[in-house]
Amino acid sequence: MKDWLPTLKTKTPEEGYELAVKLARVAVAMTQPDAEIRKKLRPEYATDFDALIASSQVVATHFATVSAANGYWQEQA
Amino acid sequence: MKDWLPTLKTKTPEEGYELAVKLARVAVAMTQPDAEIRKKLRPEYATDFDALIASSQVVATHFATVSAANGYWQEQA
Amino acid sequence: MKDWLPTLKTKTPEEGYELAVKLARVAVAMTQPDAEIRKKLRPEYATDFDALIASSQVVATHFATVSAANGYWQEQA
Amino acid sequence: MKDWLPTLKTKTPEEGYELAVKLARVAVAMTQPDAEIRKKLRPEYATDFDALIASSQVVATHFATVSAANGYWQEQA
Amino acid sequence: MKDWLPTLKTKTPEEGYELAVKLARVAVAMTQPDAEIRKKLRPEYATDFDALIASSQVVATHFATVSAANGYWQEQA
Amino acid sequence: MKDWLPTLKTKTPEEGYELAVKLARVAVAMTQPDAEIRKKLRPEYATDFDALIASSQVVATHFATVSAANGYWQEQA
Repeated sequence: MKDWLPTLKTKTPEEGYELAVKLARVAVAMTQPDAEIRKKLRPEYATDFDALIASSQVVATHFATVSAANGYWQEQA
Repeated sequence: MKDWLPTLKTKTPEEGYELAVKLARVAVAMTQPDAEIRKKLRPEYATDFDALIASSQVVATHFATVSAANGYWQEQA
Repeated sequence: MKDWLPTLKTKTPEEGYELAVKLARVAVAMTQPDAEIRKKLRPEYATDFDALIASSQVVATHFATVSAANGYWQEQA
Repeated sequence: MKDWLPTLKTKTPEEGYELAVKLARVAVAMTQPDAEIRKKLRPEYATDFDALIASSQVVATHFATVSAANGYWQEQA
Repeated sequence: MKDWLPTLKTKTPEEGYELAVKLARVAVAMTQPDAEIRKKLRPEYATDFDALIASSQVVATHFATVSAANGYWQEQA
Repeated sequence: MKDWLPTLKTKTPEEGYELAVKLARVAVAMTQPDAEIRKKLRPEYATDFDALIASSQVVATHFATVSAANGYWQEQA
C-alpha cells in the first residue's frame, strides 16, 4: 500500500468524511492483508449492528482528526 | 450520497447535536448501503441497550468535533 | 424534542457534569423514541456492570466537550 | 449528590488522576443510584478483566480532561 | 499508592509511552486492589485478543494526554 | 524493547499512519511479551471482524496524536 494518503486536507467536510472512512478501512486491511478474507467477512459484519456501530465509532475518531487538520473548513461557514 | 455535509457550522448547540447524530448514521449507511437491511436491523438494536449506549458514544465523539468547529457557540453563552 | 440545549455553558463543573449526563441520554432517546421501551430497558442495564461502565464512558466523552466549552471553569480554580 | 465537584483544578497529577477515578464512578452512581446494588455488582466486575479494562478506559478519558484543565501541571515539570 | 505520578513530563516519547502504560494499569489496581486477584487474572487476559486490544486502547488514550503534556517532544523532531 | 520511538515526527501523513499502527501494536506486546503466543493469536483475531474493528479504533486514537504532533503536515496541503 503506497501513496494512499498524500495529505489530510480536503476541499469540503464531505470529502473529509470520506477520507475518515478510508482511514478506518486501511487499518483493517493492514491487520488482515488478505483481500479474499476481508471480502468474506464484509457481508457478515455489514448485517451485525454491533459491528456497524463500532465501525462508525472508528470513522468518528478519524473525522475528528481530519476536521482539525482542515481547520474545520471555516471558510465554508 | 451527495451534498449531505456542506458545513460543520450550525446556528445552535441543539442543531449541532442533530448534525452529530447524522454524522454517526452516515457511516453505518456507507458500510451497509442496503436501506432494507438497515431498516430490518433498526428495531433490533433500538431495543438492545448495549447498542443504544454504543450509538450514543459515536454521537458523543462527533458532537465533540462539531462543538469545536463552532467554537462551542460562545456567543450563545 | 425542542430547546433542550440552549448553551454548553454552565455555572459550575458539577452542572457541566449533569449536562454531560443529559447529552448522553438524549442520543439514546433519539434512537429509541418510545419512552415505554426505554423505561423497560432501564432496570436491565442499571444492573449490568458492562452497561454501567459503557454509559460512564459516554458521559466522559461529553464531559470533555462541556469542560472545553467552559474553559474548564478556570475562574473557579 | 451535591457539591462533589467544586473545581477541576488539583495540586498534582496524582490528585488529578484520583479526580478522574471519581468522575468515572459518579456516572455509574447516577445511572444506578441504589448503593446496595452497586455494592453487590462491585466484586463481580472487579474480577472481570473486560470490565476492569473498560473502567480504566473511562478513567483515561476523564484524566485527559482533568489534565487539560490543569495545563498539564506544567510548573511541576 | 503514593507519589507514583510526580509529573506528566518525560524525556522522550518512549518514556512517555511507558508512562501511558503505567497510567492504564493504575486504574485497574485501584478498582481491584487485591494484587493476588490481579496476578491470577493476568495470564487470562494476556491470551485473550479482545482484552489485549482493549488494553492497547486505554494506553492510546493516555498516550494522547502524555504527548500533549510534553508538547509532543518537539525538540526531538 | 529499546529505542523504538525516537520521535513522533514523520515526513508524511502516510508514515504517520504507519507509526500509529506501530504504537497500537507495542502495547499489545508489552501486555503479552511472549512472541509465540502473539503469533498464535494473530490468525484468530485477523479473521474476527470485531477484533479488526477494535484494532482500527486503537490506530485511529494514535493517529490523532501523531497528526497533532506533526501539525497535521500542513506544508503538504
